[in-house]
Amino acid sequence: MAVYTQVSAEAAQMLLDRYDVGRLVSMKGIAEGVENSNYLLETDRARFILTLYENRVDPADLPWFHDLLAHLHQAGSPVPRFIEDRGGHWLQDLASKKACLIEFLPGISVSEPLPEQARAVGAALAKMHVSVTGFEQQKPNRLGIDSWQALFDRCEHSAANKLSAGLSDDIAAELTWLVAQWPNNLPACAVHTDLFPDNVLFKGETLGGLIDFYFACTDFRAYDLAVTHAAWCFSADGSVFNQAISDALIGGYSDIVRLEESEIRLFLVLARGASMRFLLTRLFDWINTPPDAIVTRKDPLAFHRRLQFYRTAAADQLFGRR
Amino acid sequence: MAVYTQVSAEAAQMLLDRYDVGRLVSMKGIAEGVENSNYLLETDRARFILTLYENRVDPADLPWFHDLLAHLHQAGSPVPRFIEDRGGHWLQDLASKKACLIEFLPGISVSEPLPEQARAVGAALAKMHVSVTGFEQQKPNRLGIDSWQALFDRCEHSAANKLSAGLSDDIAAELTWLVAQWPNNLPACAVHTDLFPDNVLFKGETLGGLIDFYFACTDFRAYDLAVTHAAWCFSADGSVFNQAISDALIGGYSDIVRLEESEIRLFLVLARGASMRFLLTRLFDWINTPPDAIVTRKDPLAFHRRLQFYRTAAADQLFGRR
Repeated sequence: MAVYTQVSAEAAQMLLDRYDVGRLVSMKGIAEGVENSNYLLETDRARFILTLYENRVDPADLPWFHDLLAHLHQAGSPVPRFIEDRGGHWLQDLASKKACLIEFLPGISVSEPLPEQARAVGAALAKMHVSVTGFEQQKPNRLGIDSWQALFDRCEHSAANKLSAGLSDDIAAELTWLVAQWPNNLPACAVHTDLFPDNVLFKGETLGGLIDFYFACTDFRAYDLAVTHAAWCFSADGSVFNQAISDALIGGYSDIVRLEESEIRLFLVLARGASMRFLLTRLFDWINTPPDAIVTRKDPLAFHRRLQFYRTAAADQLFGRR
Repeated sequence: MAVYTQVSAEAAQMLLDRYDVGRLVSMKGIAEGVENSNYLLETDRARFILTLYENRVDPADLPWFHDLLAHLHQAGSPVPRFIEDRGGHWLQDLASKKACLIEFLPGISVSEPLPEQARAVGAALAKMHVSVTGFEQQKPNRLGIDSWQALFDRCEHSAANKLSAGLSDDIAAELTWLVAQWPNNLPACAVHTDLFPDNVLFKGETLGGLIDFYFACTDFRAYDLAVTHAAWCFSADGSVFNQAISDALIGGYSDIVRLEESEIRLFLVLARGASMRFLLTRLFDWINTPPDAIVTRKDPLAFHRRLQFYRTAAADQLFGRR
């Protein structure tokens, strides 16, 4: 959420000169998305996002992201395209980083979604899962279940317990349970796995854009719905579940994609896994970020509370079959 | 250069509802200016900067900044205005901070100015010094000469010497010299004192805006020119003086304001003081910012090198009277 690499206006203009996009008239570093540096560039013709890839995105994955977004755009999904320069190149070198010029999508991200907005998100996620049909390239989920034990091992357990008494043992037991319960043959496709409210742009109640695909990968489509459910259906601290938002999100999804029985039966396992994924990455960041750092540390317990909700929830109830 | 206080789109829209500025269609946190949180807000009618004041700006000073910018705007200077809500209020409370909605000025900041751009900056600074005639409110310079010894005392001297052998003694001697030489009755007015290239917006070679007045105060107008000179006329690391830029900047200024003999005679004292101000604030930040912090520490020695230049320069030469 900061600009790590400084780019001068002159360097940005030199980059833009390779494209047929007009002349630079305004440039602002923006605090957005995962740990990349982002600039909002305005030319006399349009606006763009200039992204420089920092540590968290592996440049080797960029072609996969490009191809996925091109595929989704062609299929009519509201996703930002990578812009090609006059030579047809969409990947550039800038300030010793890999960099891309990306379509700017207007719209605002809601913090307290209305049910109609949650329904639109569910529908957009389902449409995305339909749209990736025919996109055959695979990319493993680097933050999937196979990574969680190693991530947990890198967190000091005493620090976890300081955050909440017994947390370390609870995570260890949950990881064992998740590995035992995790399915291995649900329908899979290219998925977003990070569709939090700040990655969805609205124009009023109309969904105008899905952004920040840098955690996208190949995984179960029902896991993507589970992540989105965990992201949208609770108060920020995870303590209050919002039934109306949940009904709208799952309803919007189910209107487009009819989940299989096994996906519904295993949904709570996936949702517990989704909660674990964010609990662990937040725990790691919490323990390894100095408290006085400029970056706001996000509370890991907000996802421990979601995990506790999913432990006692009933899938039939979530899917309106109570 | 980051967003410290998170503002949701809903909270931003609630704020905008007090104004007659249209509905929010896009919102980006931007990395800009001193240690405030800034958002670029776009409504269906115009764009604005929403600033939340963090630690570095004293809210008690905000009325002075407001009145100065209103005065300058009325006099035709290209400065951003504070926007008033329907009740005539320009100062708001948002997320437990003081906040203002401010006019957005397009334009880009150059990193390697051309002489024509430096001439335009000199002229704009002089016009500003003329335009503040009649603006009688006073505001002391919190980072003026009276503050430097105390600021230096808060820097660990061994850390300064680690940066450059003998730096601590050199600063101490320079401070003594500056106090002895500093004038007390040069022409004074409201001045910017931070007119670095990133605070000037250009549309091509046309100067379109002067921004970031949060270090503005009442001080010698020639000190403001000295700060601007130190900011524009050197390579970033301070090692190379650019005569053409200097000639253009001072020429642009002198076309509008004819400095008095005493101001020219004392210009190098003021320029050494300007170098000391940035040397000390950078040194303080350098010593007190962890090396792995997300904020880029700026090299204090870049202004020690400028100080060394001004020690041996000739004012007559700078002012074209060699």
